Amino acid sequence: MITAGIVGGTGYTGVELLRLLAAHPEVRLEVITSRGNAGTRVDELFPNLRGVLDLSFTEPDAGRLGACDVVFFATPNGTCMAMAPELIERGCRVIDLGADFRLRDLAVFSEWYGMPHSCPELAAESVYGLPEMHREAIRDARLVANPGCYPTAVQLGFLPLVESGLVDIEHLIADAKSGASGAGRQPKQHTLLCEAAENFHAYGAAGHRHLPEIRQGLAEAAGREVGLTFVPHLVPMIRGIHATLYARLRDPAADLQGLYEERYAAEPFVDVLPPGSQPETRSVRGGNMVRIAVHRPQGGDMALVLAVEDNLVKGAAGQAVQNMNLMFGLDETAGLKHVAVLP
Amino acid sequence: MITAGIVGGTGYTGVELLRLLAAHPEVRLEVITSRGNAGTRVDELFPNLRGVLDLSFTEPDAGRLGACDVVFFATPNGTCMAMAPELIERGCRVIDLGADFRLRDLAVFSEWYGMPHSCPELAAESVYGLPEMHREAIRDARLVANPGCYPTAVQLGFLPLVESGLVDIEHLIADAKSGASGAGRQPKQHTLLCEAAENFHAYGAAGHRHLPEIRQGLAEAAGREVGLTFVPHLVPMIRGIHATLYARLRDPAADLQGLYEERYAAEPFVDVLPPGSQPETRSVRGGNMVRIAVHRPQGGDMALVLAVEDNLVKGAAGQAVQNMNLMFGLDETAGLKHVAVLP
Amino acid sequence: MITAGIVGGTGYTGVELLRLLAAHPEVRLEVITSRGNAGTRVDELFPNLRGVLDLSFTEPDAGRLGACDVVFFATPNGTCMAMAPELIERGCRVIDLGADFRLRDLAVFSEWYGMPHSCPELAAESVYGLPEMHREAIRDARLVANPGCYPTAVQLGFLPLVESGLVDIEHLIADAKSGASGAGRQPKQHTLLCEAAENFHAYGAAGHRHLPEIRQGLAEAAGREVGLTFVPHLVPMIRGIHATLYARLRDPAADLQGLYEERYAAEPFVDVLPPGSQPETRSVRGGNMVRIAVHRPQGGDMALVLAVEDNLVKGAAGQAVQNMNLMFGLDETAGLKHVAVLP
Amino acid sequence: MITAGIVGGTGYTGVELLRLLAAHPEVRLEVITSRGNAGTRVDELFPNLRGVLDLSFTEPDAGRLGACDVVFFATPNGTCMAMAPELIERGCRVIDLGADFRLRDLAVFSEWYGMPHSCPELAAESVYGLPEMHREAIRDARLVANPGCYPTAVQLGFLPLVESGLVDIEHLIADAKSGASGAGRQPKQHTLLCEAAENFHAYGAAGHRHLPEIRQGLAEAAGREVGLTFVPHLVPMIRGIHATLYARLRDPAADLQGLYEERYAAEPFVDVLPPGSQPETRSVRGGNMVRIAVHRPQGGDMALVLAVEDNLVKGAAGQAVQNMNLMFGLDETAGLKHVAVLP
Repeated sequence: MITAGIVGGTGYTGVELLRLLAAHPEVRLEVITSRGNAGTRVDELFPNLRGVLDLSFTEPDAGRLGACDVVFFATPNGTCMAMAPELIERGCRVIDLGADFRLRDLAVFSEWYGMPHSCPELAAESVYGLPEMHREAIRDARLVANPGCYPTAVQLGFLPLVESGLVDIEHLIADAKSGASGAGRQPKQHTLLCEAAENFHAYGAAGHRHLPEIRQGLAEAAGREVGLTFVPHLVPMIRGIHATLYARLRDPAADLQGLYEERYAAEPFVDVLPPGSQPETRSVRGGNMVRIAVHRPQGGDMALVLAVEDNLVKGAAGQAVQNMNLMFGLDETAGLKHVAVLP
Repeated sequence: MITAGIVGGTGYTGVELLRLLAAHPEVRLEVITSRGNAGTRVDELFPNLRGVLDLSFTEPDAGRLGACDVVFFATPNGTCMAMAPELIERGCRVIDLGADFRLRDLAVFSEWYGMPHSCPELAAESVYGLPEMHREAIRDARLVANPGCYPTAVQLGFLPLVESGLVDIEHLIADAKSGASGAGRQPKQHTLLCEAAENFHAYGAAGHRHLPEIRQGLAEAAGREVGLTFVPHLVPMIRGIHATLYARLRDPAADLQGLYEERYAAEPFVDVLPPGSQPETRSVRGGNMVRIAVHRPQGGDMALVLAVEDNLVKGAAGQAVQNMNLMFGLDETAGLKHVAVLP
Repeated sequence: MITAGIVGGTGYTGVELLRLLAAHPEVRLEVITSRGNAGTRVDELFPNLRGVLDLSFTEPDAGRLGACDVVFFATPNGTCMAMAPELIERGCRVIDLGADFRLRDLAVFSEWYGMPHSCPELAAESVYGLPEMHREAIRDARLVANPGCYPTAVQLGFLPLVESGLVDIEHLIADAKSGASGAGRQPKQHTLLCEAAENFHAYGAAGHRHLPEIRQGLAEAAGREVGLTFVPHLVPMIRGIHATLYARLRDPAADLQGLYEERYAAEPFVDVLPPGSQPETRSVRGGNMVRIAVHRPQGGDMALVLAVEDNLVKGAAGQAVQNMNLMFGLDETAGLKHVAVLP
Repeated sequence: MITAGIVGGTGYTGVELLRLLAAHPEVRLEVITSRGNAGTRVDELFPNLRGVLDLSFTEPDAGRLGACDVVFFATPNGTCMAMAPELIERGCRVIDLGADFRLRDLAVFSEWYGMPHSCPELAAESVYGLPEMHREAIRDARLVANPGCYPTAVQLGFLPLVESGLVDIEHLIADAKSGASGAGRQPKQHTLLCEAAENFHAYGAAGHRHLPEIRQGLAEAAGREVGLTFVPHLVPMIRGIHATLYARLRDPAADLQGLYEERYAAEPFVDVLPPGSQPETRSVRGGNMVRIAVHRPQGGDMALVLAVEDNLVKGAAGQAVQNMNLMFGLDETAGLKHVAVLP
């Protein structure tokens, strides 16, 4: 059994990690930290875990955490880079669900996240945990930067087009929509039910933190810089991301369906839907799958990609578990076989 | 492996059975019937099952169904009693998620369901599938009548009070609230999102079909007739039932918390919450648990019971699987260990 | 034109007052205060008011407020009693949408609201602003205590039964359900969309602050103390309260429908529905109406009353405007003729 | 007073017309037809209208309708063109909220709507009722084709860019999102609460009926054909459309904010928001306003327009009333001054 710790177990990605790890056949949860809730039983905060998880939150402690095989950080940005060096030194492997290690260019990191980076060496060694791009590197990584929720859906949606050079990469458009759980469990006015329900709007049109992360991944796939307009929107629902992607085709006659099916043929968590499909976010709710459909509306020169994921699973905790499975040589799908709950 | 068939696999209880049985470690799904969708792949209708279930809907056929160890009916009322006799004769065991075999008094059945009962002998032999009341009889049953969604929550909520004789059973009140999935997947105007969202109302105040079923169960527990006012309401959500139960205490000094904890100590799917709790429906969403809290507001002579369940799981498909587990000597919790998805 | 001020215009009752008063034919809004948003244009916070209201929030100032004919307090409890004496001295009339002046017994007030009462004299003179009970006193009041949202629905629902002496007033039950806007616009975890949507639960079962207020009103109607069990629940929607009321009939043969129709025949904002009706909260969304249906399930000895209101209108801002209309001799329905928005 | 009739008063655009016209100061509703509900009181179906509208549905009758000054058709496509000729001959003016007269090219109409056009002459004379484009023609029209919901938002959002020639009109992208009321009140599976809530997906990616209508309007504004990719999505809410529009700028230095403010300076129902705004659909819920913000993300060469409307008001019934006001020389805003209900 792999022993695991979670730093910051009280947010939505934290409780989702708890749900997934509590049922994982090869993991034993040892430590769950929370400064604000130390001493409280986990199932007091999250009654869905009653009878499933017999643990209490503790203060973060490098000794107890460092004794784990793997530690997940489900914390605000900045926390992981403060604690990771010590844990890694103790032989622990680290998966950061925050943004500390996602961006290669630390100047870009500082610009978008408003803080200096405190451990450039670890940043240089860390691996961006999108298995569909970096599977082999993840296996050996000591430190994995788990991708953001939007970047997972948008990169997986665009990858085949960008890698193949079939589209104009100067003018990519990602119109993305997310349920409110992406905004976290901290009380904020704009995600109150009374503000977010029966309502729809864009946000971050001037520039969302996930923009540089997506650009970085697509540039890597393309071999050069890409131009991307990224507009996220808030959907009045709890879970789910829908990315609607637009790219102008250089060759309108290309076989897009074949391209996608081939690219993802071996991927356990990317499902390319039959031609004409329009995936629903609920078809992946609670599961680790991304479902993708590719269209060419009216047979024109615009490629349209529709991609859905559960932002808390493939967009966060599920992908973290997938990365852990890879890092420890387990079946990549272990503990991730949940069928989406529908309706 | 137990071989299973489902008659009527396209409604919400049907697809929930599919989700549970597809992941059940000791069951192999062999047949799923649907008159309207025969020939269609199951995962075309329910994309959450892509990669999980490699089956197509077929026309109902007594031969193929009868070759299964167990057949579930997730059908409109009247269907099961038409087909069950032949299947049972072929050695198949039957679990009816409809109402055909729930009521002992067939005159009452005819009155509330508007149809005569076509097989009184089977009705007489059938077992009401509430394991917390009839576990031993269920083990040996050839035909189990799976309880209704409201009756499961209301009976489990009232049982300790009624069995113990602690309350006035002439004036029980069950104020119940259900998500819209209880109304089924057939298009009806009142469960359109535009009618049911941002809205709340009672229905069936004049008399709901689950009233005689609840009265029957409580009368059995009490040893005599009970008086019950049952008012269901429609909640703008998909899953979940919340039963708020009121009963006047004969002895206000009784230890209600102890009574409930003792009554359900051995039950794998009834969770008595700590004193002062107020259970949330989402704490059981997607899982087979009923969570119950008992209160005595302001220390008065009124007992207040709050009970929650997922109407599609413990209120339908999950309880059906629980009954199957009992009937076939499996671990009662096999295939039912899902942690509720929260948020 | 009546000149009006609002203290605390940034919560949900505040913005609802703005919507109603901005369109009121006989009112001119002069002052809207908010400590936190002083200097901000009102329509910057509430874009629905763009082009409708040309005002900015200001710091509360007794001089400017005291120059108004009427000042509404849409503030946390305690604020109104601190400022009302000075305003009233300046000749201003005050309507408090908070709880400072709702309870006659100031010891009860202190017990439930956790603060001493700072102006008992004004409390003694204030009028409880439920027009259906106190219309004449309201006309002459200098200070009106606008009822709470639950108390409005529950009292109006029970009044005919309690006044007539037809029911056992020792064991009244009010099972009430409210949309999340009742919890206000301050960020709190339990009213985040991700917590409150797709979820249903009771709260305040141990004792909600509206309990003594309801008991006070019903006791006044009955001429003696009443026994009440009051259980509020949170509904995953924005607006609306549904009160489901139970009372045991002393005389089951009583004409309940006639009783209600007669009691409310002259009331402009109480609509007694035809026999058999089950009112929907959306039928009053955005409007000042309470709709009530009365039932006797299965012809038994239990009276069942279903009452709906918009908690922000008849349960708060609309009733405040109705009180203002009465206080200033206007048509009671002026500015309150909105048709509910449906769907 | 203008006398008005409504054909097909039981759908969502019908009941919204009722809400608006019942409170219109210069209109008297005389006739409301519904084949399925003839004889039923309107307020029995729509209790929000109790006390407001004292009418019953009747069978459609050319005599009674033809005696009205104006008749609104809120009917399935095909109905208006069957009845309009006779009504117009009787001197009645007609506003069709359906699609019968929206498309200039009747071959395109037949292709997209699957029926021949039965009155080409009336089609030729009819006026497309988007006041921001055709105000003068509307004033004199006998027959107005009220625009579709998506076309209203998308055209108003794109108009300044397309009219000014500032953008590449070959590759316009409209990523549009609508609440479920756009799908109507007829029971359909995909708009059940259990299907549409907690879910998000695109639909009509292969080609939606509003595509040719939008292309027609934009081509008229541009003076030549435009290329448009239009992808509608279903949002889990009742009311509201959000159009996110993308167009590549020929001149990135253009003053987009000024362009929009100038274009719509005189428009009573188009609100250009301050720079940096991101409009919310709820800011127009129940009102006739369109709110628009224009951005240039990261200062690049892509123009981004965000436009919101209430699909049942400015996208249907409200715009129809606006057209009526123009046709009868009333104040264009008469009966349309509702402040959006928020929250």
